[in-house]
Amino acid sequence: MNPRVLEISGSMIRRVAARKRAASIDLGLGEPSLPPNFAHFEAAMEFVRARGARYTPNAGDPDLRAAIAGYYAYPGLRDAENACVTVGSQEAMYVTIATLLDPASDELLVVEPAFPSYVKMAALNGIAVRAVAMAERDDFAFDAERIVRALGERTRAVVLCSPCNPTGRAISPAQAALLARELERRGASIALIHDEIYREQCFVERVDLARLYANTIVVGSLSKSNALTGLRLGWILGPASFVEQAVKVHAWIASCADVFAQRVALHVFETNAPGEHAAWYAARVVPTVAALRESGLRFIAPDGAFYACVELPGTQSLETALALVDEDDVVTIPGIAFGASLEGWLRLSWVAPENDVREGLRRIGARCVMREGPEAASYSPRGVRAP
Amino acid sequence: MNPRVLEISGSMIRRVAARKRAASIDLGLGEPSLPPNFAHFEAAMEFVRARGARYTPNAGDPDLRAAIAGYYAYPGLRDAENACVTVGSQEAMYVTIATLLDPASDELLVVEPAFPSYVKMAALNGIAVRAVAMAERDDFAFDAERIVRALGERTRAVVLCSPCNPTGRAISPAQAALLARELERRGASIALIHDEIYREQCFVERVDLARLYANTIVVGSLSKSNALTGLRLGWILGPASFVEQAVKVHAWIASCADVFAQRVALHVFETNAPGEHAAWYAARVVPTVAALRESGLRFIAPDGAFYACVELPGTQSLETALALVDEDDVVTIPGIAFGASLEGWLRLSWVAPENDVREGLRRIGARCVMREGPEAASYSPRGVRAP
Repeated sequence: MNPRVLEISGSMIRRVAARKRAASIDLGLGEPSLPPNFAHFEAAMEFVRARGARYTPNAGDPDLRAAIAGYYAYPGLRDAENACVTVGSQEAMYVTIATLLDPASDELLVVEPAFPSYVKMAALNGIAVRAVAMAERDDFAFDAERIVRALGERTRAVVLCSPCNPTGRAISPAQAALLARELERRGASIALIHDEIYREQCFVERVDLARLYANTIVVGSLSKSNALTGLRLGWILGPASFVEQAVKVHAWIASCADVFAQRVALHVFETNAPGEHAAWYAARVVPTVAALRESGLRFIAPDGAFYACVELPGTQSLETALALVDEDDVVTIPGIAFGASLEGWLRLSWVAPENDVREGLRRIGARCVMREGPEAASYSPRGVRAP
Repeated sequence: MNPRVLEISGSMIRRVAARKRAASIDLGLGEPSLPPNFAHFEAAMEFVRARGARYTPNAGDPDLRAAIAGYYAYPGLRDAENACVTVGSQEAMYVTIATLLDPASDELLVVEPAFPSYVKMAALNGIAVRAVAMAERDDFAFDAERIVRALGERTRAVVLCSPCNPTGRAISPAQAALLARELERRGASIALIHDEIYREQCFVERVDLARLYANTIVVGSLSKSNALTGLRLGWILGPASFVEQAVKVHAWIASCADVFAQRVALHVFETNAPGEHAAWYAARVVPTVAALRESGLRFIAPDGAFYACVELPGTQSLETALALVDEDDVVTIPGIAFGASLEGWLRLSWVAPENDVREGLRRIGARCVMREGPEAASYSPRGVRAP
C-alpha cells in the first residue's frame, strides 16, 4: 500500500467523537444543531421529479456557478467560470492544493492553529508543508508579519481559515491589508487560499481577502451557514485560468457534485438564504461568552465560527479530551489536533443547547487545574453584537 | 501550478458531448435515459425531514455499509467493515488507486480499451501506468494470458471493467478462472481492481472476480443500475485491512458521501432494487443488435453495459466524432478516448430511443467508408437473452 497513506493518522476529531454516548454533552463535532430549511430540499425534489438525477457538467450546473460567483461578487471573480462546484469545502480544498502545488518543488504554508485537513491533503499529494503558528499570548490572533516572515523560497501558497476553525478568530482589516501588501510586494506569485466556510458566522467586521489580493482562491460551502454538513456541497472560487485546471482534478476525483445537492444550493442562492441562520449564531455569542467567563477557564472569545477554545494549562489535550468523554460525558476536541501551538487547549463547539454548554464547561472546569488567566479576567467581547 | 495537472487533458467524452445541440441524436454520454424510481428519493426526504442533513461517519452510514456488503455477499467481504461509501464509483476508484499504489515504486496495469479515468487518476497521483490492450481481431474479448504476460516486476494492481465500458465485453468464466489462477501463482500480492459499475447490465453469465481471487477490490455504484448518475453514490468493497486505509484517503478528500444520497441508496438496497432496471436493458439488446447489423458496420455485440462499438476503418476517431456531431447531429464517443487500441472505432450508447439509435447508425454508416467485416456477417448474439 501507499506509505503516504499508512503514515497518515485518521481524524482525531472523529476518534473522540466516536466515544460519545447517548447521554453525552456534545461540544465536539463541528456542525450546526439547527435543522436545515426544508424548502431547499423541496425545490430539489421538484427538479428530480421532472428531470431525473443526471450528471451535471464537471464544474457544476452553470446557473449554480453563476449564483455562487454573483453572491460573493469579488472583483475579477464575478463570472460562472470563476466557480467550480465541489463535494463540500473538503474536496474544494483538496482539489485546490492538488492543482496549485507541484510536489517536486513547492511548499504550502499553513497558518496554525488550523483544521488538520490542509496538512493531510498536502501529505497525500506528496507536497511539502510548513506551518506558522499564531501567538498564544495574543489569543492566536492572525498576525500578518508572522505569516510573511514564515514564507520560504518554495512557498507557493498560504492557507488560512477566517473566521477560524478552531480558534474562532477572524483576521482584522489592518492585518489583512498588511498581508495583501506584503504578498503583492513579492510579485503576487504566492496564492492565498482563504477557507471561508464560516463566512456567515462572523461577529466582527468581516474581511474578504479576495477583495484585497488578486491571487486569492476562496473555498466555501453551505455546510455551516445552512446546516447542510451532510449534503457535501461546496465550491472553489478563483481566477478563471486556475479554475479551468482545478475542474480537471475535480472531474477525475468526483465527476461532478451531486445534482440533488446542487439544486438545494441553487434554491439557497435564489432565495438569498446563505445568511438565514446568521442571526441565531450572533444571538448565541453573548450567553456563550458569559458561560465561558463563569467557568473561570482562560478562553478565546469568538470573533466568528461556532467554536471557543479554553486553556487547560499543563495538560495533554488528547488525554484530557478522552478522559472528559469517558468519565465526564463531555465531548470536546483536543487542541493538538489543530497543531502543536494549540496543545494544552480544548476546542468547544457552542451550538449545543445553552444549558449543555454551561454544564459542559462546569465539568471541564471541575476536572482541570484552575488558573485565573489575565485574558479571562480582562475579557472584552471584541465587536460581539448584542442579541 | 502542478505540472501533473497541466499535462492532463480534460475529458474527451465531455468535449464531444459539449457540442451537442438540442436536436442532436445522443449516443454519447454514458447514462441511462430511464427516470429513477422516485420512491427512493421520498424515503431520503423522510429521513432529512426527521433528522436533518448531518455528517455520517467517514466510511458511510453503518446500515448502508452492511447493506452493500450483504448485497454482494462475496466470500471474506460480507461485513460492513468491508465497504466504504464514496462519491460515486469515480471517487471509489480514485481512492482505491491512491491507497493501493506507492508512487515511488509501484505500477498500475490497465486492461484496455478502458474508461480513461484510471490512467488520469494514476497520473494525478504520480503513479506509473502500463496498459495492456485486448485484441481487436478478437473483438477485444478479455484475454487472461495477455493480461498475465503484461505483468511487470513493479505491477501492484490490475484494473479491469467487466462488463466493459467501452467495449461492452464481459470476461468469460474460463478467462476469469485462468486470470485468478495465474495471480494466485504469483502469491496473490497483486490486487485485482474490478470495476463492477455495469454489474446489473450483464446479458451473459456474470463473473464475480471477488469469488475467484481473494485479493480483489470491487468498485461499484447505483449510477447505471438505477439511473442515478448525478447522485454520486458509490462504494469500495474489499479486505477490511485495505478498506481501513482507504477510508482515511476518502475522509481527507470528501469527509463522507452525501447523507441524502446515502439514504436513497439504503432504500434501494432495503427494497432489493439494484436490479429494478435490468429487464429493460436486456430487452433493448436484441433490437440494438438488429440495428447494428442493418448498419453494415463492423460492430461488437454487447455482453453487458449499454454500449456498442462500431469500427470505421482507416479513420481518426476524434475527427470523425467531431464531424458527426457538428455536421450530422449525432453524438458519439471517439474510440481513442479509451486507449490507442480503440482508434478507428466509435463508442455508441444505446439507451436512446430505438428510432434514434437506428437513425444515428444510418448517419454514421452514410458518412463512413463501408466495409463488410467478417464479424458483422457472422455475428451471433453471445448469450443475448430474447426480450
